[in-house]
Amino acid sequence: GSDGAAQAVAHRQDILTKPQGSLGRLETIVAWLARWQGRDMPKLDKVKVIVFAGSHGITAQGVSAYPSEVTVQMVANFAAGGAAINQLARIANAELDVIPLELDRQTGDFTQEPAMNEAEFLAAVSTGYESVGKDIDLICFGEMGIGNTTPAAAIAAGLFGGGAERWTGRGTGVDDAGLKRKIAAIDKGLARHTAQAADPLKLAAALGGRELAAIFGATLAARHLGVPVLLDGFVCSAAVAPLARLHPQGLAHVLAAHVSAEAGHRNLLEAMELSPLLDLGMRLGEGSGACLAINLVRSALECHTGMASFAEAGVSEK
Amino acid sequence: GSDGAAQAVAHRQDILTKPQGSLGRLETIVAWLARWQGRDMPKLDKVKVIVFAGSHGITAQGVSAYPSEVTVQMVANFAAGGAAINQLARIANAELDVIPLELDRQTGDFTQEPAMNEAEFLAAVSTGYESVGKDIDLICFGEMGIGNTTPAAAIAAGLFGGGAERWTGRGTGVDDAGLKRKIAAIDKGLARHTAQAADPLKLAAALGGRELAAIFGATLAARHLGVPVLLDGFVCSAAVAPLARLHPQGLAHVLAAHVSAEAGHRNLLEAMELSPLLDLGMRLGEGSGACLAINLVRSALECHTGMASFAEAGVSEK
Repeated sequence: GSDGAAQAVAHRQDILTKPQGSLGRLETIVAWLARWQGRDMPKLDKVKVIVFAGSHGITAQGVSAYPSEVTVQMVANFAAGGAAINQLARIANAELDVIPLELDRQTGDFTQEPAMNEAEFLAAVSTGYESVGKDIDLICFGEMGIGNTTPAAAIAAGLFGGGAERWTGRGTGVDDAGLKRKIAAIDKGLARHTAQAADPLKLAAALGGRELAAIFGATLAARHLGVPVLLDGFVCSAAVAPLARLHPQGLAHVLAAHVSAEAGHRNLLEAMELSPLLDLGMRLGEGSGACLAINLVRSALECHTGMASFAEAGVSEK
Repeated sequence: GSDGAAQAVAHRQDILTKPQGSLGRLETIVAWLARWQGRDMPKLDKVKVIVFAGSHGITAQGVSAYPSEVTVQMVANFAAGGAAINQLARIANAELDVIPLELDRQTGDFTQEPAMNEAEFLAAVSTGYESVGKDIDLICFGEMGIGNTTPAAAIAAGLFGGGAERWTGRGTGVDDAGLKRKIAAIDKGLARHTAQAADPLKLAAALGGRELAAIFGATLAARHLGVPVLLDGFVCSAAVAPLARLHPQGLAHVLAAHVSAEAGHRNLLEAMELSPLLDLGMRLGEGSGACLAINLVRSALECHTGMASFAEAGVSEK
């Protein structure tokens, strides 16, 4: 990241016609954009949302409220423009891509075997990595995959400890019996794959999912290409959590767009030292929370670029 | 408000392609719009921001970090398009009006006399009332008036108790000595005008300001005309607090856009049982927080109107 660009923003913020610091996080958002775009005056000409979809063997354990065929049906709904993320991307003036990852081939049921072997994991990471172009000014990643709060909770538990119960919520809305099955499956998976626990990437392969691996890869690519990332909810947060484990600054280019209503998300953001912009009780996934925050970033930049200074406006200072 | 319209929204939300309730507050926002617009399918074709400006005699007590001439200078900055609210209104696709209220005639210093007599108070309320047109779909009110967090804190203390210290913050950024003067001035005003304490309107006249009175009047007009209101920060909240005191449902058509960094605002929203949409450490006024939330409301409505139902999209339900 560019310290110089972030400092240029902070300097300009201090001469604009407002009490210093009075735009709160809108000021630090612009400095964050500048730092990771490497531009003294950031821009938001091209904003993109990429939704990755994956299919999960763990659904065999009865962990989700919806049948696993819904993943393919929702991908068709994205293509037809009927999902929440289509509306949110349009109003945010963001381009939406949907990338299905071998939906006809479920990952392994991690209570029985690794979700992915090394080659499968790297293939998904690579698809994510290659999905990010260099000319993007801000990016959001989203996910669709019936059952995927289960691998997300498993990764969170594996990386940050405390057992399945601490990280497991109702996802799309499982009942009490389903929640019990979900917790039991995760604890079983954690016990089966303890040998992978010390390596965040091996853990993400053994307990994760293809769309999570792709989001990991895409977030890494964004860092290398100078593209700031708005982070969506629980599944996306778990997907990038290995980056936080691999390097203390691994998620410095990532801003948490929101904290979701999924039980483990608040704890997970705290474990990664991320402070969410929004807290609206959302729990949909698809990148919906991240996409909703795009306008906050646009608004912050609009103030930064468009406001007059005290000198320009002839306004008296303190 | 229309129960029928709110129910129509809730019914449609339940058939859209998402787990029920998973858009969180985006769902209840649409029901709120429907209820107060009185439309089964709400619209946001015309969104407006009105900033009222007033001049305060209490500035003689040294309660603000900025000289009182800044009020007039900032009104000129609004006209020239150089303030934060200009940028925020533009990106929210909202029309911006600025209404200065007798800026060459300060209110009375409430440590010495009432801020306004009855006629002056009603004139300001009336200006606000008449500023709201019938064809508006959503409205934000903002304020500019050097010194005006002092009358705001005085009104909050007068209506909800606890003394000046509980409600007084640094406004645009007074130093420790200024904060002490501010608290002392408010306690002096509360003691001087105890006879008005039982009547929220008399209190607002004795301790308030013209822009606060106008926001009170405009918020009342919005209720009568079926225009939902996004509430800005501490000063706007204090301005409408008499409505909460006059009737338990007096602010039902008002949604708190944000909680500001001004010390008393969180307590004040709690006292009025309002739950803010945003919490971004802003403390600028001008309607900036309210305006920033317009896009959240637009996004909520866009999902509601644009999403496919389970049946339309051929997606399996639970």
